[in-house]
Amino acid sequence: MSQYVLKIDCSDEKGLIYKISNVIFNNDLNIEKNSEFVDEESQKFFFRARVVGNLDIDEMRKQLSAVLPNDAQVYLGVRRAKNVVLMATKESHCLGDILLKYQSGELNANIQAVISNHDSLRALTEKFDIPYFYVSAENLERSAHEEKILTLLAEFNPDFVVLAKYMRILSADFVKPYEGKIINIHHSFLPAFIGANPYKQAHKRGVKIIGATAHFVNNDLDEGPIIAQDVIHVNHEYSWRDMQKAGRNVEKVVLSNAIDLAFEDRIFVNNNKTIIF
Amino acid sequence: MSQYVLKIDCSDEKGLIYKISNVIFNNDLNIEKNSEFVDEESQKFFFRARVVGNLDIDEMRKQLSAVLPNDAQVYLGVRRAKNVVLMATKESHCLGDILLKYQSGELNANIQAVISNHDSLRALTEKFDIPYFYVSAENLERSAHEEKILTLLAEFNPDFVVLAKYMRILSADFVKPYEGKIINIHHSFLPAFIGANPYKQAHKRGVKIIGATAHFVNNDLDEGPIIAQDVIHVNHEYSWRDMQKAGRNVEKVVLSNAIDLAFEDRIFVNNNKTIIF
Amino acid sequence: MSQYVLKIDCSDEKGLIYKISNVIFNNDLNIEKNSEFVDEESQKFFFRARVVGNLDIDEMRKQLSAVLPNDAQVYLGVRRAKNVVLMATKESHCLGDILLKYQSGELNANIQAVISNHDSLRALTEKFDIPYFYVSAENLERSAHEEKILTLLAEFNPDFVVLAKYMRILSADFVKPYEGKIINIHHSFLPAFIGANPYKQAHKRGVKIIGATAHFVNNDLDEGPIIAQDVIHVNHEYSWRDMQKAGRNVEKVVLSNAIDLAFEDRIFVNNNKTIIF
Amino acid sequence: MSQYVLKIDCSDEKGLIYKISNVIFNNDLNIEKNSEFVDEESQKFFFRARVVGNLDIDEMRKQLSAVLPNDAQVYLGVRRAKNVVLMATKESHCLGDILLKYQSGELNANIQAVISNHDSLRALTEKFDIPYFYVSAENLERSAHEEKILTLLAEFNPDFVVLAKYMRILSADFVKPYEGKIINIHHSFLPAFIGANPYKQAHKRGVKIIGATAHFVNNDLDEGPIIAQDVIHVNHEYSWRDMQKAGRNVEKVVLSNAIDLAFEDRIFVNNNKTIIF
Repeated sequence: MSQYVLKIDCSDEKGLIYKISNVIFNNDLNIEKNSEFVDEESQKFFFRARVVGNLDIDEMRKQLSAVLPNDAQVYLGVRRAKNVVLMATKESHCLGDILLKYQSGELNANIQAVISNHDSLRALTEKFDIPYFYVSAENLERSAHEEKILTLLAEFNPDFVVLAKYMRILSADFVKPYEGKIINIHHSFLPAFIGANPYKQAHKRGVKIIGATAHFVNNDLDEGPIIAQDVIHVNHEYSWRDMQKAGRNVEKVVLSNAIDLAFEDRIFVNNNKTIIF
Repeated sequence: MSQYVLKIDCSDEKGLIYKISNVIFNNDLNIEKNSEFVDEESQKFFFRARVVGNLDIDEMRKQLSAVLPNDAQVYLGVRRAKNVVLMATKESHCLGDILLKYQSGELNANIQAVISNHDSLRALTEKFDIPYFYVSAENLERSAHEEKILTLLAEFNPDFVVLAKYMRILSADFVKPYEGKIINIHHSFLPAFIGANPYKQAHKRGVKIIGATAHFVNNDLDEGPIIAQDVIHVNHEYSWRDMQKAGRNVEKVVLSNAIDLAFEDRIFVNNNKTIIF
Repeated sequence: MSQYVLKIDCSDEKGLIYKISNVIFNNDLNIEKNSEFVDEESQKFFFRARVVGNLDIDEMRKQLSAVLPNDAQVYLGVRRAKNVVLMATKESHCLGDILLKYQSGELNANIQAVISNHDSLRALTEKFDIPYFYVSAENLERSAHEEKILTLLAEFNPDFVVLAKYMRILSADFVKPYEGKIINIHHSFLPAFIGANPYKQAHKRGVKIIGATAHFVNNDLDEGPIIAQDVIHVNHEYSWRDMQKAGRNVEKVVLSNAIDLAFEDRIFVNNNKTIIF
Repeated sequence: MSQYVLKIDCSDEKGLIYKISNVIFNNDLNIEKNSEFVDEESQKFFFRARVVGNLDIDEMRKQLSAVLPNDAQVYLGVRRAKNVVLMATKESHCLGDILLKYQSGELNANIQAVISNHDSLRALTEKFDIPYFYVSAENLERSAHEEKILTLLAEFNPDFVVLAKYMRILSADFVKPYEGKIINIHHSFLPAFIGANPYKQAHKRGVKIIGATAHFVNNDLDEGPIIAQDVIHVNHEYSWRDMQKAGRNVEKVVLSNAIDLAFEDRIFVNNNKTIIF
């Protein structure tokens, strides 16, 4: 008996739940958790189930295709730890938090490597016996630097790339092959304070809350589908450095929650928005 | 075409979603929203759907009974405004908030009356053209006082009784005929500070958060199934009266959220806990 | 014995607290609450105290001027209920919330009038025996419409004008004479979603939190000093109308908290930011 | 020029701020931050300032004593990193979080040692080059076990002992010599769910929020003065293990915030409550 995750998205029509649950029933599977959603605007249907049983995956995929609309995208696979590469720059709080959780067995993931444009986080990473790759950007064009990282990534072929405070903007060429697989943490409640130094921007604007946003990365800076957000309250006594310090706790918790959702295949993307079950 | 709400709870077994969705499909209904949950501890299955179509309710109930376990409880009815009686004592913030929402058309409810053990809130209530019944408890045994209120309630036969800061404890005899229909707001994050003067208790204990809890009322004081809770942060500068003042905003919002859920038939009770879809 | 509020801002220098507290001590006043802050960037000093005693206000102002830097701005006055005019358009939740609090005696304010560009809120306002002025903008240039309202305001000469969901943009000419006296509630966590329909914007962007911001109004739309902000979590199930409905609770609470601070003279403005004691 | 922290508590009387700021002024000190509070109930005055200058500490203490009430407690010292011993049992999230912050230089503390009643956290601790002392409780009376730990602590003579999920109850004899110096994190929003397994208790009660509380330890279990608290929302889908997992993020952030306050001498204790500047 194994655990499987089934994800379906397709155009909405009457009877989808009946048809899908019929296939699940005929395969003698037990549903542990089951969620559906219809997006009114796009008239799209989203379904996710965690099922338990003995399964011929290809056969069940065929059965599902036979009853689903033509545009249906079906993901069906054994629930397993995801392969993950982390990228970071100099700040340790998000990287360290993920490494701690990884070591304590809390993460449904296998961390394959840490890649950084600086050498500062090598000691921390190697404490946890994770290979560290320092890919300096010095004297390199952006494309040449990214090429080096892409070559490294290709070796690991990760399910997800997590930007744990990686502070360089990624080009469209970099992002393309990993669409829906790169998760970033931005240190503001997007769409406020897009771009550089959001805490300085927040301090200048005199906001009373600061926050963090985890999102998938697409071609446009800080414009990708939002997975998780949270905020904390601040006041006039906070310098921008105080905001930065307090914000780190929000950043690492928001990123941690977002990657947990991704690693359990709980996220759909639709019209640059996420549906999370 | 009408909107219906279907709620089912029964012991869990394989194929329930398939069987239920089959009945829905055969009745040519469109599912607008659909939620399920299996409680592992009690091995009970909970299902709620909002469906649209033309429906023979009795016929569909029969079809459902035919495929569901023997212990199944099925609720199926047209989505409609609930009939509601409010009870309050002297504080106006929760009552006023509900009346304002009622008047602006935000509440899926028909407010039939306000019953109070004081006359203080008559002016406010009558501003909104709601009948106000002052049932003094003076010189009355608890049972006699409650009897008077029960007689009033019986006339209105409400779907729900909302205790919008009604500050008298209700006896088991009062609660019994309205089990699962009386919603109370308690001014603490239960189970902390059960009983009288929770803000004084909170102030004495020096807590850094205060809160409010909306719950169904059962025989034991402040022990009923919790529907909604929230908190705000406080500090040493707050006297207990400051806490009380700040807490009022939490109380009214938490109660408002809870009754919205109840009026839409989104709550199940299981083992003194709520399941909310 | 009366309560007084003393507010001072001036350029920072050594010994200010000593000099100020010396004057307070010499006037035999008891300090109930006392707060100071130095803004590092602008090197400005801010001080507020609530004091109790018998006081010759002019004399004490002179004594303070004698020891403070030349640029000092001193406010010293009896603590009193503020005179307030409310402005609103069609939505009742913020207006109703303020009126309820006013009636229950929770507001340190005397509400003089409600002014609206629609007649929709007349019934609600008059329930609370507050004069309602309907100033239609139809067939009027913005300046002519604003002129009418300014004339009305001039009659009341309020300490504060509270925009309780007043949905028209105010021109610089309108704002100028009431600088630091007009408080607005914006239905987003500024600076995100400036301008029209923030909930639609938020829904389109797929945010996981929505919020509200109370701020002083200056010449630039939604750019004034922020007084209070808060957020709530939302998810993919929220339509923009669901966000709007849920957001109303945040809006009214944030606005309520902001005006409480203003009515107690607890806010300073410095470099388009607020300092709140 | 050095930074000093000055903390005073004494019975309240008129002119205290004037007298204290006079001494500060006469010593030619610059006040960076300054806070006061009068507790109405106990009629006690609390004062804290961070000052900069060149200072004869003993001399200034004398000057302060000369002007303050007899019961005044004065703390005046150079701002410095605190010496800290951490205690933990098996869970790594709070310990790891503190070690990460220590290593990145964010903590105003010198971590001297980790003491544990299990050997499980040795590897993690030693990654960060901190001595780890495994003091097994096996076959030992409580008093004998505590005696061993007290002997160890005596060697380090720490300013603070931080219980980073140390899961054994400490006796009054243990606590006494470290009164006001032991900080614990309890995994519930106290006073709810005192004692063992708060997440199981919370799950059983069906709460919609779970939380964490950092507090000073006194003789009574989970009854000490509260420093910081926070909560997160949960729902019926959370098993108690899900609550535990989600709660870890709250625990570590609340503990982290609390120790930051303690290490900066920002906390007073009065009547089993904290005053935090």
